[in-house]
Amino acid sequence: MDTPLTETFHTTAFLGLGAMGAPMAAHLSARSRASGGQTLVWNRTPGRAQEHAAQHGSVAATLEDAAGADLIVSCLPTSAEVDEVLDAAHAHLKPGSVWVDCTSGHPDAAPRQRDQLSSAGVRFLDAPVSGGTVAAKAGTLTVMVGGPADVLDAVRPQLAFAGKVVRVGDTGAGFAVKAVNNALLAVNLWAAGEGLAILGLRGVELGAALEVINASSGRSNTTENLIPQRVLTREFPATFGLGLLAKDAGIALDMAEQARGSAPVIAQVTGLYRAASRVVGAQEDHTAALKLIEQMNGVVLR
Amino acid sequence: MDTPLTETFHTTAFLGLGAMGAPMAAHLSARSRASGGQTLVWNRTPGRAQEHAAQHGSVAATLEDAAGADLIVSCLPTSAEVDEVLDAAHAHLKPGSVWVDCTSGHPDAAPRQRDQLSSAGVRFLDAPVSGGTVAAKAGTLTVMVGGPADVLDAVRPQLAFAGKVVRVGDTGAGFAVKAVNNALLAVNLWAAGEGLAILGLRGVELGAALEVINASSGRSNTTENLIPQRVLTREFPATFGLGLLAKDAGIALDMAEQARGSAPVIAQVTGLYRAASRVVGAQEDHTAALKLIEQMNGVVLR
Amino acid sequence: MDTPLTETFHTTAFLGLGAMGAPMAAHLSARSRASGGQTLVWNRTPGRAQEHAAQHGSVAATLEDAAGADLIVSCLPTSAEVDEVLDAAHAHLKPGSVWVDCTSGHPDAAPRQRDQLSSAGVRFLDAPVSGGTVAAKAGTLTVMVGGPADVLDAVRPQLAFAGKVVRVGDTGAGFAVKAVNNALLAVNLWAAGEGLAILGLRGVELGAALEVINASSGRSNTTENLIPQRVLTREFPATFGLGLLAKDAGIALDMAEQARGSAPVIAQVTGLYRAASRVVGAQEDHTAALKLIEQMNGVVLR
Amino acid sequence: MDTPLTETFHTTAFLGLGAMGAPMAAHLSARSRASGGQTLVWNRTPGRAQEHAAQHGSVAATLEDAAGADLIVSCLPTSAEVDEVLDAAHAHLKPGSVWVDCTSGHPDAAPRQRDQLSSAGVRFLDAPVSGGTVAAKAGTLTVMVGGPADVLDAVRPQLAFAGKVVRVGDTGAGFAVKAVNNALLAVNLWAAGEGLAILGLRGVELGAALEVINASSGRSNTTENLIPQRVLTREFPATFGLGLLAKDAGIALDMAEQARGSAPVIAQVTGLYRAASRVVGAQEDHTAALKLIEQMNGVVLR
Repeated sequence: MDTPLTETFHTTAFLGLGAMGAPMAAHLSARSRASGGQTLVWNRTPGRAQEHAAQHGSVAATLEDAAGADLIVSCLPTSAEVDEVLDAAHAHLKPGSVWVDCTSGHPDAAPRQRDQLSSAGVRFLDAPVSGGTVAAKAGTLTVMVGGPADVLDAVRPQLAFAGKVVRVGDTGAGFAVKAVNNALLAVNLWAAGEGLAILGLRGVELGAALEVINASSGRSNTTENLIPQRVLTREFPATFGLGLLAKDAGIALDMAEQARGSAPVIAQVTGLYRAASRVVGAQEDHTAALKLIEQMNGVVLR
Repeated sequence: MDTPLTETFHTTAFLGLGAMGAPMAAHLSARSRASGGQTLVWNRTPGRAQEHAAQHGSVAATLEDAAGADLIVSCLPTSAEVDEVLDAAHAHLKPGSVWVDCTSGHPDAAPRQRDQLSSAGVRFLDAPVSGGTVAAKAGTLTVMVGGPADVLDAVRPQLAFAGKVVRVGDTGAGFAVKAVNNALLAVNLWAAGEGLAILGLRGVELGAALEVINASSGRSNTTENLIPQRVLTREFPATFGLGLLAKDAGIALDMAEQARGSAPVIAQVTGLYRAASRVVGAQEDHTAALKLIEQMNGVVLR
Repeated sequence: MDTPLTETFHTTAFLGLGAMGAPMAAHLSARSRASGGQTLVWNRTPGRAQEHAAQHGSVAATLEDAAGADLIVSCLPTSAEVDEVLDAAHAHLKPGSVWVDCTSGHPDAAPRQRDQLSSAGVRFLDAPVSGGTVAAKAGTLTVMVGGPADVLDAVRPQLAFAGKVVRVGDTGAGFAVKAVNNALLAVNLWAAGEGLAILGLRGVELGAALEVINASSGRSNTTENLIPQRVLTREFPATFGLGLLAKDAGIALDMAEQARGSAPVIAQVTGLYRAASRVVGAQEDHTAALKLIEQMNGVVLR
Repeated sequence: MDTPLTETFHTTAFLGLGAMGAPMAAHLSARSRASGGQTLVWNRTPGRAQEHAAQHGSVAATLEDAAGADLIVSCLPTSAEVDEVLDAAHAHLKPGSVWVDCTSGHPDAAPRQRDQLSSAGVRFLDAPVSGGTVAAKAGTLTVMVGGPADVLDAVRPQLAFAGKVVRVGDTGAGFAVKAVNNALLAVNLWAAGEGLAILGLRGVELGAALEVINASSGRSNTTENLIPQRVLTREFPATFGLGLLAKDAGIALDMAEQARGSAPVIAQVTGLYRAASRVVGAQEDHTAALKLIEQMNGVVLR
């Protein structure tokens, strides 16, 4: 707590070059270079880091070297992977630096991670993102941040991948809001699938139905974007895995249980996404959950 | 079927001057008068019709007189009320005219109503609307129409209350799409309530949470409009009753059952809205369903 | 109403010789013959009636002849088939006789069927049965009866297939209780399947788990009988179809909706049985619904 | 692991004298005294231990003294309380002894507790019980045990409160089966409540309905015992708290989530019991969950 926060973020590092992380790191790298700095990139499989360096002018680095940056941004599948990386990086951290975790993590992990970093003089923000690969590439991600306002103020200008950055509360609040956002995505998507299946069984043309729903009170991001673009086209591009969405809805459910809260609809839907992960495949795009609805109803949503 | 469709819609009639019907009838009346015609208005309680006439230049009429119009538009609570009015009006109908029912009706009622009107030489369209009282006043309602395309083409210019008119299929398809739209509204609203309750139990500031959700994948009409405007303000203005939304979700569920379809999430949510109608009150605004979620979680969504 | 009830039930008839009906008719026939009477049997496919006559001493008959019996018992898939048979039989009914419908029918059908029969001087009881093919063969079925107590008193001695006969209320109450009983069967069975899947994923031996559950508070007919006998053995003998159980749960759900009642768990489970009917097959035994749970969890319940 | 297991269980101890623990300890004490030994009893509030000693010939003890017994049996609200007691007792344990935890604990806690005890040379069995206060008083509880078979064989004769003892698997399996049993209790009870509410709305006499259901396929322990004895009588005797049943169902749900399993019905029902705990009261009897169903339907189950 007493270590002063660094005043400049000359060297930045990005850990985790997946479908989201790679374009996010590219924005970070472009910004660093524009201000005379550099962005170290690390990935569990080193080939991706070298590829990223070649394409985006970032610098492929070991985890030990990356750990010494002024600003570290991580974007990994779950909090479990972040914990592993934190343990491996701990001895190499630089006091005064800031670690921003953009993983869709578990709110329970955040205070533990904050405390672990604090012992090395490093600040922590949980800062998951929303917008998918499209917004990651465009640098217009929404970032929901938990943690101290002054730390966020310090790093905010560095978050070159962000279109909107909102502090939603103390440590863990970012993860909490992300989990709830994704639970709503899961529910809205599933319900739209059921509704279209009902109409499909009746022979209603689904494109026309979506057109009016999207001008009506039942509309959501899933009816406006995901279903017309991914389901009715039968493309189901795998940009965000079904298994990961099931995991996120499960985090929201876990939060409800821990608080002795009642969320029977999110609970049911989490179970259905777990089922879809088994039946359709956890690696499929999250919109492929509707393939289970199709089986359940004997219709195809096209 | 053989009676030729009327070529002009000189006299129009509007049946049912409720929260939606009254402003819709006002738009119809303004259009009629602009073209030298008139709009007869009828309501079960005649005082409302006289009031409407005084305010909007429409003409208060008996049901018998209204039944003789070239175009009849009805907007009543459920298909049961439409059936009653149809029976009473039947002997007074004018061959060649068109009856447009904007009620959120049951798809099963539509073919029966069409056939009953057909025997009097009258065409039928099921044409429920979405957009609430705001769009009704603005004349920008979305209309989802089931029935013959040529009949819709003939009356389309008369639908002065509409911002968007889409034919979604044959007779009954309009009611079907409306029921599904409202079922999605019900699910999206309930899920958002659960999600905010989870965050509220954790102490997250709900306004900030909604701000990021509305820039993220979990957004819907309910997080963008209904909850900030009606729930967080604690106003719950009663423009669309909780009991009516439960009824509409029930129609979607009934459609699923009839087709031996599987819609387990819409099914659960319908049950929860029935519960909310009992516990909170069927006459309350539909957004007041979230008061039941508040009781279930021991939190207030503000 | 004024036609006096017959004093003797010399000739009885049984309509519908399915898995349940055939053994029920055999008991009826044995009783008739013991008292010097006879039982006419009718089935849509006449071969079954002739086979029954050969095996059980009943008399294969046309529907017209069967309709003239003193006591008519029907056992058909749904109320729709009963309506068809009623229409065809109507002109041949004998005033003073009693029609006992053992179909798992819809409560809404009962008053209509009662009135139709009443116009021919015939009394009606809705009297669905429970116990499955085992109890049907043993003549120990439970019969739940809706209708006038005096009519039940008159026919009670004739119901040779029954182990227990209980009047549960007025016309339709028998169907209502049967629908609820089967909805509970559906829920209890599904929940047991989920619970065993959870234990199976953890490697717990399911036979031992069932042994303790059956000595504990979570026990039900499904854990005591159906699952050990039909699921863990992998036999799934098709004595009661999955599609018919989905239909019965749907009747309970429909009753809830009509009364504006809230039954969110029965609602979800009905949807899941509809799904199982599609994915596993409507003709499979009702216990095969657990094959869908197995797919949803990636386990086999053995 | 190397410390030999004690050959005699001369001194036994019982920790936790709640509604279940007190009569269980009385049976343990009676057995100990019959064989010339004694049972030490401990409770967080010492008055209960002294009362128990006076009534049942047990010996009120400090936790430190109780910890030195040959056999320790604990029965506490949740695993969290067991963890606290284990920590406090650790320094006073006797190598070669056995700790049997009858708490309805979390399966994740069991291996941790086993290892902690193992470091002091003490064996651990997770051994939750079912049967309620009636079976606890009668000494006929069902015990579901996880852990090594030889340890169970050694202590089995000492479990004087048991009517049936079944080893269901390795450490944690006892807790797992108990959680699933109670989840089934929760689902079966809730479904029965919904079913009776549907019948109640229709005016069916509930006692007659239960009589036939209990002779039919939908029967369960809840329709046979709990509802006739506790709900229809309006007594709701608080022997097993609503909040504790919600907790147990939550453990089953947590197990499903950890294994990426799909249990959407148990998930929904857990949420509804959480709601009932808030609305009706966590300290009320678990059967009082049906008071929430009554509110949701506007009926009273009597």
